[in-house]
Amino acid sequence: MKTLQDVFLHTLQDIYYAENQMVKSLPEVEEAATGSKLKQAIADHLEETKQHVKTLEKVFKSVGEEASGEKCDAIEGLIKETRGLMKEASGDGKNAALIGACQAVEHYEIARYGTLREWAKVLGHNEAHDLLTGILDQEKAANSKLTNLAVSEIN
Amino acid sequence: MKTLQDVFLHTLQDIYYAENQMVKSLPEVEEAATGSKLKQAIADHLEETKQHVKTLEKVFKSVGEEASGEKCDAIEGLIKETRGLMKEASGDGKNAALIGACQAVEHYEIARYGTLREWAKVLGHNEAHDLLTGILDQEKAANSKLTNLAVSEIN
Repeated sequence: MKTLQDVFLHTLQDIYYAENQMVKSLPEVEEAATGSKLKQAIADHLEETKQHVKTLEKVFKSVGEEASGEKCDAIEGLIKETRGLMKEASGDGKNAALIGACQAVEHYEIARYGTLREWAKVLGHNEAHDLLTGILDQEKAANSKLTNLAVSEIN
Repeated sequence: MKTLQDVFLHTLQDIYYAENQMVKSLPEVEEAATGSKLKQAIADHLEETKQHVKTLEKVFKSVGEEASGEKCDAIEGLIKETRGLMKEASGDGKNAALIGACQAVEHYEIARYGTLREWAKVLGHNEAHDLLTGILDQEKAANSKLTNLAVSEIN
């Protein structure tokens, strides 16, 4: 990776891998959650995540690249942490812990899309910029929804 | 972990571990960065991180617990990703990649402190709530500073 374009492409591959991993692991989180409200929120976010994978494929296409993933150590760590919580937490604390873990993932994605979107602008990838901004806005909304759920869950 | 208090304590131990790991790894990032502006920003953040470790010790004390860390898989993953970038990135893309990696860590911390602060409030840990809010505000400011640096770096 020598240029900003290289770093942009590497990070795009990293988040593409991360979103695909979330498509695989969100059903486990939904299963572990208790209460229909939280289960539904996770199910909705799974559908949104599947859509993000498709949008990322459009981003790759818009910059003339094949969609491909690159192992992302950060999401692996976040998922490992979430799995640990699913095993260790129970009772009243469980949903709070799961929501917290989901918010950590959301924040990771917000960081990555925020950066990618800025890089796309500088690199003149206008279509990619707009597509990435659309995903970023959805991740921010998902995080706010989780905050509201967390507050209602613990009160 | 059966109660919100258990989850609060577990997450506090997790972020205490994470901040201690960042104290160890930020000097490597400073070394890898090029340009005095970015190096200085990382050095400043290292000092702030050391302060956060001390503030977290006050949080533990305020809830009647001994300060202790619990291995945090998420920060391990984020640091592994950062080390990969330090090795693979060079030239124009390097600083952009390093700033992006630091922002991913900041966002992880923002997620954790945001959650911890809310839990502290619900649990009636008022002193902990205020101390955690102080750290959260500093992490948000650090992230904004990195965004500004990122924009000036790539333009």
